[in-house]
Amino acid sequence: MTDKRDEFLQKVLAGDFRAVARLVTLVENRSSESAPFLRELFPHTGRAFTVGLTGSPGAGKSTLVDRLAQSYRAQGRKVGIVAVDPTSPFSGGAILGDRIRMQSRSLDPGTFIRSMATRGHFGGLTRTASDVLAVLDAAGFDPVFVETVGVGQGEVEVARTADATIVLLVPGMGDDIQALKAGIMEIADIFVINKSDHPGAEKVETELRALISMSTRPDGWNPLIVRTVASEGIGIDEFVSAIEEYRRFAARSEVRKNERVRIQKERLLELACMQAREELLRDNAAADRIEELARLIAERRLDPFTAAEEVLELHRKNFQ
Amino acid sequence: MTDKRDEFLQKVLAGDFRAVARLVTLVENRSSESAPFLRELFPHTGRAFTVGLTGSPGAGKSTLVDRLAQSYRAQGRKVGIVAVDPTSPFSGGAILGDRIRMQSRSLDPGTFIRSMATRGHFGGLTRTASDVLAVLDAAGFDPVFVETVGVGQGEVEVARTADATIVLLVPGMGDDIQALKAGIMEIADIFVINKSDHPGAEKVETELRALISMSTRPDGWNPLIVRTVASEGIGIDEFVSAIEEYRRFAARSEVRKNERVRIQKERLLELACMQAREELLRDNAAADRIEELARLIAERRLDPFTAAEEVLELHRKNFQ
Repeated sequence: MTDKRDEFLQKVLAGDFRAVARLVTLVENRSSESAPFLRELFPHTGRAFTVGLTGSPGAGKSTLVDRLAQSYRAQGRKVGIVAVDPTSPFSGGAILGDRIRMQSRSLDPGTFIRSMATRGHFGGLTRTASDVLAVLDAAGFDPVFVETVGVGQGEVEVARTADATIVLLVPGMGDDIQALKAGIMEIADIFVINKSDHPGAEKVETELRALISMSTRPDGWNPLIVRTVASEGIGIDEFVSAIEEYRRFAARSEVRKNERVRIQKERLLELACMQAREELLRDNAAADRIEELARLIAERRLDPFTAAEEVLELHRKNFQ
Repeated sequence: MTDKRDEFLQKVLAGDFRAVARLVTLVENRSSESAPFLRELFPHTGRAFTVGLTGSPGAGKSTLVDRLAQSYRAQGRKVGIVAVDPTSPFSGGAILGDRIRMQSRSLDPGTFIRSMATRGHFGGLTRTASDVLAVLDAAGFDPVFVETVGVGQGEVEVARTADATIVLLVPGMGDDIQALKAGIMEIADIFVINKSDHPGAEKVETELRALISMSTRPDGWNPLIVRTVASEGIGIDEFVSAIEEYRRFAARSEVRKNERVRIQKERLLELACMQAREELLRDNAAADRIEELARLIAERRLDPFTAAEEVLELHRKNFQ
C-alpha cells in the first residue's frame, strides 16, 4: 500500500467525512480499487452495532431513523444510516424523492447518510451493503442503521446482515400481518408500531403479542414491542432502550454467536465465487466462451450442467 | 442412466402426474439425484411460456391464476402453477393456509400445482424455481404460472425468470404505487387491476397510464393494462388475450432474446459456483477448514478477502 493510500486509509479510520464518503462510493460501485482498503479496514470492524429496519413504504421508516439518530447523537455517538432503495432493474435508478430527503438529513457532520440502489445481480446487494457497513464500522460510526423497503426475501437478507432486526408496522395493515406471520415474523428482534396514535394500534399490538407467544426462538429472545409516533418524537426513548436491551442480549448469546459464524461462512463462499467470477470475466477468451455457452443454453443446444462443468474447468485451467 | 431411471424420465416427459410431482419434489429439496434428470430433460424445455405474477398479499393472485388456468384448460392446454411463499428463515415453513387452498385447486388432472417455500440461502429460490419450471416445461405444461408475494428484490428476480411478468394491483393501494414507480414498474409486461369494481379503479388506471407514458422500454413494448374482477370471472378473456399478445411480441423481440442470453449467463455462473461449493463442502477436510475460516473472520482475526483466496485455492487443489 502506497503512502498516499495509507494516508487515505488513516483518514477513513479517523472518521474523516470526505474520505469515508469516497470509499463508500468505491464500494458501492464495486470498484476493484475498494478491495485492498476493505482488507486493511477489516481488523477495525466488529465494534459497531448495526440495526436493520424494514417495513412497508409509508410506514415512517425515515422519520423514525431520523429520531433514533438524533437520540444517539445527543449521547455523543456518531451515527451511520444506509437506506436501501428498490431499483428499476432496467435503469438502475433509485427513488429520487428519497435521495432528496436524504440530503436534508445530512447536515449534521456526526451522521453519515447514504442511499443505495439495489442494482446489480441477485445477492450483490447483501455483499455491497455489508461492505458499506464495514467501512462505517471501521470509521467509528456506531450504531449504523440500515433501512430497507418491503418484506421480500432480498430485504430479509439485508436485515439479517445487521446485528438487530426491527420490523416496522402501522395500524390498519390488515393483510400485511398475515404475510408477516410466515415471512419476517421470526427475524424481528423488535417490533415497532409507528403512528400508534392512529386507530387500530391496540389491535396490531394484540395480534403481534399473540403471534410472538406462539413461537419460540432458538436464541430464547422474546421480541419486544414498542409504540411510537415518530413525527412527534413519542416513544423514541423506549425504542432506544429496547435496542440497547437487545444489544446486551445479543452480545451474550451463544446462538447469536454461532449465527454470526454461519453468516460469515455463507458470505465467504459467496465472496470466493464472486472473485472466481471476476477472474474469469476479466479473461477475454474465457468471457467469450461463457457468452457462447449462455447462447447455446438459451437455444437449448447445451444443458446448463455440462456448461457449468466447462466453466469450472476454464477457471481451473486459467488460474492455477 | 439405468433403465429404471430412463423409464421414470419418459414418464415425466409424457406428463405423468406422479412422476412429475416426484421429480419436482427432488428438485425442490435440491437433491443431488435431480441433477441428471434435469440434464436429460433440458433439451425438451423452452416450449412453455412462463408467466410470473406478483402483487401484495390479498390482491387476489390465487383467484386470478385459478381463472386463467380454467380459461387455458378450456382450450385443452395443460397448465402449471407454481406458488412461491415467503418463508420463515428460522423454521423454513410455508404459509399453511395457502397450502390448503392450493390443495383444493389441484382436483383437475390437467393442472399441476405446487407451492414452494423460499427457504435456503439467498439466490437459491431463483435457481430452484427455474428448475421446477424446466420440469413442468419438459412435461408439456404450457403456460406455467409463477405466483410470488410482494415486491422485494427476490420476488422481482423470480418474476424475471418468467417469460412474461404481470403485476397485480388493486384500487386504493395508496403508497404502493409510489413503491412500484422505482421498483417493479419497468419489469411489468402487463398490469392487472383486480377488484376493479371497487372504488378507485379508475384512479389506479390513470396513475398507471401516466407512469407508463413517462417511461420507454428498451424492447419497445408498451405495458398493457387489464381490469378484472377475478372472483366473478370478469375480464379474464381480455387478460388471456393480453398474455397471448405479449407472447407473440416476445417471440419476435431481439431485445428479449438478448435478455434471455443474459439471464442464462447469470444462471450459468451461479450454477458453476453452486457446483464448486457443493464439491468443496462434500470434502470433509475442506468443509472443516471453511468452517474454521468463517470463525476466524467472525472473530476479526482474518479478513474475508484473504480467506476467499484460500477457499479458491482449496478448490483448485482438491478438484483438479
